[in-house]
Amino acid sequence: MATPVKVYGPPLSTAVSRVLACLLEKDVQFQLIPINMSKGEHKSPDFLKIQPFGQVPAFQDESISLFESRAICRYLCEKHAEKGNKGLYGTNPLVKASIDQWLEAEGQSFNPPSSVLVFQLAFAPRMKIKQDQALINQNVEKLAKVLEVYEKNLGESRFLAGDDFSLADLSHLPNTHYLVNATARGELFTSKKNVGRWWGEISSRDSWKKVVDMQKQTT
Amino acid sequence: MATPVKVYGPPLSTAVSRVLACLLEKDVQFQLIPINMSKGEHKSPDFLKIQPFGQVPAFQDESISLFESRAICRYLCEKHAEKGNKGLYGTNPLVKASIDQWLEAEGQSFNPPSSVLVFQLAFAPRMKIKQDQALINQNVEKLAKVLEVYEKNLGESRFLAGDDFSLADLSHLPNTHYLVNATARGELFTSKKNVGRWWGEISSRDSWKKVVDMQKQTT
Repeated sequence: MATPVKVYGPPLSTAVSRVLACLLEKDVQFQLIPINMSKGEHKSPDFLKIQPFGQVPAFQDESISLFESRAICRYLCEKHAEKGNKGLYGTNPLVKASIDQWLEAEGQSFNPPSSVLVFQLAFAPRMKIKQDQALINQNVEKLAKVLEVYEKNLGESRFLAGDDFSLADLSHLPNTHYLVNATARGELFTSKKNVGRWWGEISSRDSWKKVVDMQKQTT
Repeated sequence: MATPVKVYGPPLSTAVSRVLACLLEKDVQFQLIPINMSKGEHKSPDFLKIQPFGQVPAFQDESISLFESRAICRYLCEKHAEKGNKGLYGTNPLVKASIDQWLEAEGQSFNPPSSVLVFQLAFAPRMKIKQDQALINQNVEKLAKVLEVYEKNLGESRFLAGDDFSLADLSHLPNTHYLVNATARGELFTSKKNVGRWWGEISSRDSWKKVVDMQKQTT
């Protein structure tokens, strides 16, 4: 039996939970190694050897150490093409290119405003950090514009990159989960016909429900 | 002979020039279609059909339209694996994963502060837009921290993802070119032993010199 891969970091981290969702979709065995970020363990010399930016997650497979959640997901899909959800990263070059396109749209257009909002609206209050209302307003506006494009695209196809759930959809789960379930801004998603339908569908996948359970066990 | 691929957008755009550098490395014929952004052509209904976010570049090959520069580069490398620079996206899965990791580091950690600085320091003065000194200082600090990680990594390998020039290095060319050559902040790169050596090497590639010539022809 293959040695489980190692994922370092807390499931509450959006980037860690992105990798966990991918591992569960691909049915790849893993071991989750807790990193206590409040104690600064992500800045320790040993951790910096595998994640030089001092961020989570870090990842180790038999022959490789990796960081950057989207790169780890791509690696898992390439290595385990025939395991679990076989179409997660496409089964032909054109579909794969479309998945890459929307995965980049997530990283470049969706993630910047949504991660600011997740921090400001969901985490800052728990951490007793003062919210920045101007920053919130600015990023709500940016995210709303991005979601207008998604609304149109999701009126033409069931998922972002076509008829099948893919890595591009999966990559949106972590931030959207917090925005819909832990802030008062969920209507940004749920009030839109197509985006709301899409969110309902992707968030009810078994893989993501297991990640949410792991998050609950660590709060 | 294959029909040239089409790239829409001005070479002065960092995202357009990333795709042009990749096309030249891969020796793929292309046709550059000008988009006059000052006239709002990137927001026209026809353009929005191929680039729904109204940004550049957009890209068309025989059977596919794509946006997002890094996704277009991945597609070109996958489709033309045996053409031009064959190792640009790696020739084995572990090297490819490492390239993806550093390509994501560029997109997620390097690009955000460096693109703010390119706009504030190189473009804002030309466009008679007032510079935001607080924003500049904040992003110089962020970029300096990212480059500390690069300095260490580039002390261990010639290029970001190993001994060969790859898509990960290429993706840093557009922003770094402006910062080094069109602002007073070039020493962020050139004063560092390994980053400076790396920059000298990647910026003197024939592919990039041709892109810079194309940029000069459009100013």
